[in-house]
Amino acid sequence: MDLVAELRRVVPHDRVLDDPDVIEGYLQDHAEWAPYAQAVAVVRPRDTAEVQAVVRLAAEHRVPIVPRGAGTGLSGGANAVEGCIMLSFEAMDQVLEINHAERFAVVQPGVVNDDLRGVCAVENLWYPPDPASAPWSTIGGNIATNAGGLCCVKYGVTRDYVLALEVVTGRGDVVRLGRRTAKGVAGYDLCGLMVGSEGTLGVITEATVRLRPKRDAERTVAGYFDSIVAAGEAVSAVSASGVIPSALELVDKHCLEAVDAWKNMGLSTEANVVLLGRCDTPGRAGDEEARTVLRCFEQAGASWAAVSSDEQEAEALFDARRLAYPALERLGPVLTEDVCVPKALVPEMLARIEKTAAQHDTLIANIAHAGDGNLHPLLITPIGDEDAKRRAQAAFEDIIADAIELGGTVTGEHGVGLLKRGGLQREVSPEVLDMHRAVKQALDPLGILNPGKILA
Amino acid sequence: MDLVAELRRVVPHDRVLDDPDVIEGYLQDHAEWAPYAQAVAVVRPRDTAEVQAVVRLAAEHRVPIVPRGAGTGLSGGANAVEGCIMLSFEAMDQVLEINHAERFAVVQPGVVNDDLRGVCAVENLWYPPDPASAPWSTIGGNIATNAGGLCCVKYGVTRDYVLALEVVTGRGDVVRLGRRTAKGVAGYDLCGLMVGSEGTLGVITEATVRLRPKRDAERTVAGYFDSIVAAGEAVSAVSASGVIPSALELVDKHCLEAVDAWKNMGLSTEANVVLLGRCDTPGRAGDEEARTVLRCFEQAGASWAAVSSDEQEAEALFDARRLAYPALERLGPVLTEDVCVPKALVPEMLARIEKTAAQHDTLIANIAHAGDGNLHPLLITPIGDEDAKRRAQAAFEDIIADAIELGGTVTGEHGVGLLKRGGLQREVSPEVLDMHRAVKQALDPLGILNPGKILA
Repeated sequence: MDLVAELRRVVPHDRVLDDPDVIEGYLQDHAEWAPYAQAVAVVRPRDTAEVQAVVRLAAEHRVPIVPRGAGTGLSGGANAVEGCIMLSFEAMDQVLEINHAERFAVVQPGVVNDDLRGVCAVENLWYPPDPASAPWSTIGGNIATNAGGLCCVKYGVTRDYVLALEVVTGRGDVVRLGRRTAKGVAGYDLCGLMVGSEGTLGVITEATVRLRPKRDAERTVAGYFDSIVAAGEAVSAVSASGVIPSALELVDKHCLEAVDAWKNMGLSTEANVVLLGRCDTPGRAGDEEARTVLRCFEQAGASWAAVSSDEQEAEALFDARRLAYPALERLGPVLTEDVCVPKALVPEMLARIEKTAAQHDTLIANIAHAGDGNLHPLLITPIGDEDAKRRAQAAFEDIIADAIELGGTVTGEHGVGLLKRGGLQREVSPEVLDMHRAVKQALDPLGILNPGKILA
Repeated sequence: MDLVAELRRVVPHDRVLDDPDVIEGYLQDHAEWAPYAQAVAVVRPRDTAEVQAVVRLAAEHRVPIVPRGAGTGLSGGANAVEGCIMLSFEAMDQVLEINHAERFAVVQPGVVNDDLRGVCAVENLWYPPDPASAPWSTIGGNIATNAGGLCCVKYGVTRDYVLALEVVTGRGDVVRLGRRTAKGVAGYDLCGLMVGSEGTLGVITEATVRLRPKRDAERTVAGYFDSIVAAGEAVSAVSASGVIPSALELVDKHCLEAVDAWKNMGLSTEANVVLLGRCDTPGRAGDEEARTVLRCFEQAGASWAAVSSDEQEAEALFDARRLAYPALERLGPVLTEDVCVPKALVPEMLARIEKTAAQHDTLIANIAHAGDGNLHPLLITPIGDEDAKRRAQAAFEDIIADAIELGGTVTGEHGVGLLKRGGLQREVSPEVLDMHRAVKQALDPLGILNPGKILA
């Protein structure tokens, strides 16, 4: 069978790309080291009917389908599997409705996160989920991976904002899951089940996402610490104070050094660890919260700490966080870890990571959503150094083992994809894995939806 | 087979009740008109192992299991099915852990909602979900039905607070779903899928629920209105103002009259509709919010409106809400409806309910979580009047049809149980019902878990 010809029979000719050079650009996401295979074609549908036509064709011929947003994923979830059709949503990028009265937006899956946030801002509304990939990643991808971000500590994750989904199932049916009302318990939460299922249970063709009123300006609290332990104590103190910050980020000395080597900001001479908190409660209560966070930082032994409500100054303070990743990438390919542990165990987990780094002679820098206990150890290997890569791989496995041992999870917000399949098997019991397989079999009986992701 | 003897073989003798008079008290929840059948036995397990033993025995003999909390449900979800074992969790009522650092509680399913809230309050913590049944209903039942309440408008529903569950599956396995960390995306959200599945996918034996820091005192804003339309405009104005109140309740004239007839509070002579708002944002910002809500009430034409931050005074204002249900019950059995519509369509829905009441000559009073668009039409029929009951049944069906026509759902927070199975079929497509059946078949292949609920 000529699959490309078949595809062009069921959707307009120009939707189907089969130039190998063009296809090459769609085969993998940003996960270093995750394997990917060859796709037969890339299809860029314009509407739900076209998606359905492609899924039905794939079902008929038992061809795998891999849905793909912007490819910013970090677990290989959107990587091509052999002989698949890549379904790319770049041409379905419209915000279809902004509903003020019910406070939700209806969007196509290819809308870029920041674009939606921009549209909302103009309307005095706010879509909270803010993964670091927000300038590029799409809402469809965010939903497929249940993306997190900085604001989760106060505002939750993507799942908390998904009211309804239109999905094409593995049987090729178009279904509407969830609802447009604020509450609803009619039947199983199949909408929530789709969120974070990484394209293995259904292909998202439309999403209705909850919005919030535009929020007030945030205050930023920065603190410099000599040790991870002191910074950890500051995080615990904030939690104990009852203040829920709108962000609470940690940047370690390896990140600070990399940023300094690139931008010469002099951070690493002043601090070994930087904590960055934000408070967005309106009015004086918010000012009071920021002062409480400041006090927590100081009492935990910060060598310097300050509150800023000046937006530019605050952004400068956040530069250390923002620039860490690109600064580290200058040193070599970065493998991003994503473990999440009980918040109180962040210092313990960071200490273990330091030990792991020494043990495997691997540079591991750390950014962490400290307020959530979600750590991103960044493993850097010099380009082309195969031995370093093997050592880093061993370190990666040790980090996963430590996170599980501390009662944590192998993935806080990036997803299982390909890189964490082994980790998932270690984290949950065989019976829970069986439940996963049963649900997969129930909703994708032909096994055509992103096969091999999450479950091997 | 002597099932009672078999049960007493696998769990201690005293756990198994088979006195018909005792069993009778366990056969139905608070859903007026929902059918119930005869149970073979009631089992009151003391721990997970005992639950597992009972489920395994039931699996072996293909005997239905009906899990039951306090029986305060309003859809028949906990009603006995013929020949079943009722699993009552009244003896598994312990709060096992309060974790301050991670801010969660681990509880057995039989803990009463208000008891958990009480334990939390002592620890300066707060478990938000507050169904009206909180003084009696259990956390297990709240989770099984994804219970709502007054605070949902700002703080969400029970599902938003369930971090992890221990569940006995239909295969008799004990599994742990979810996590103890703030975030996590390892695998499908099977924990969230269990929430609201009404005991049809698994039996909850332990729950880890998210807590919040104890909140500040609330301010109460009360408004009297001459018409439903004016009250609806006030609700819309609050939404448009960007204030998210911590409660926004509506009580209609039939409720006010019933309360007056009972308590002689003189409410119905002053108002046709009462709106009750609450604001719990701390400090001046919260005071400002309360003033904004007050302004919204006044501009929508309230005949009287006031803010109170005095707790006793506020409680007195909320009496109209609290006393409505018992006041109506004095008039006859109350069938509680639970539709949820887009917030902006609350006045339209209330107008349709009024028409339905006239058409079917049925007394229908209304309490509504107006801020969520969640209405509780209360259909009252005189005891023993079979014709009135038939008319009320027809009105019930019309209300469901209207809610669906307005883009709403047949159940906002009470669940499908038995009473809304037809409504669910009208609300979702045949393909979505098929997905429900496939998931049920995948997780309860023997069909022993609360069979016939949600799905016929």
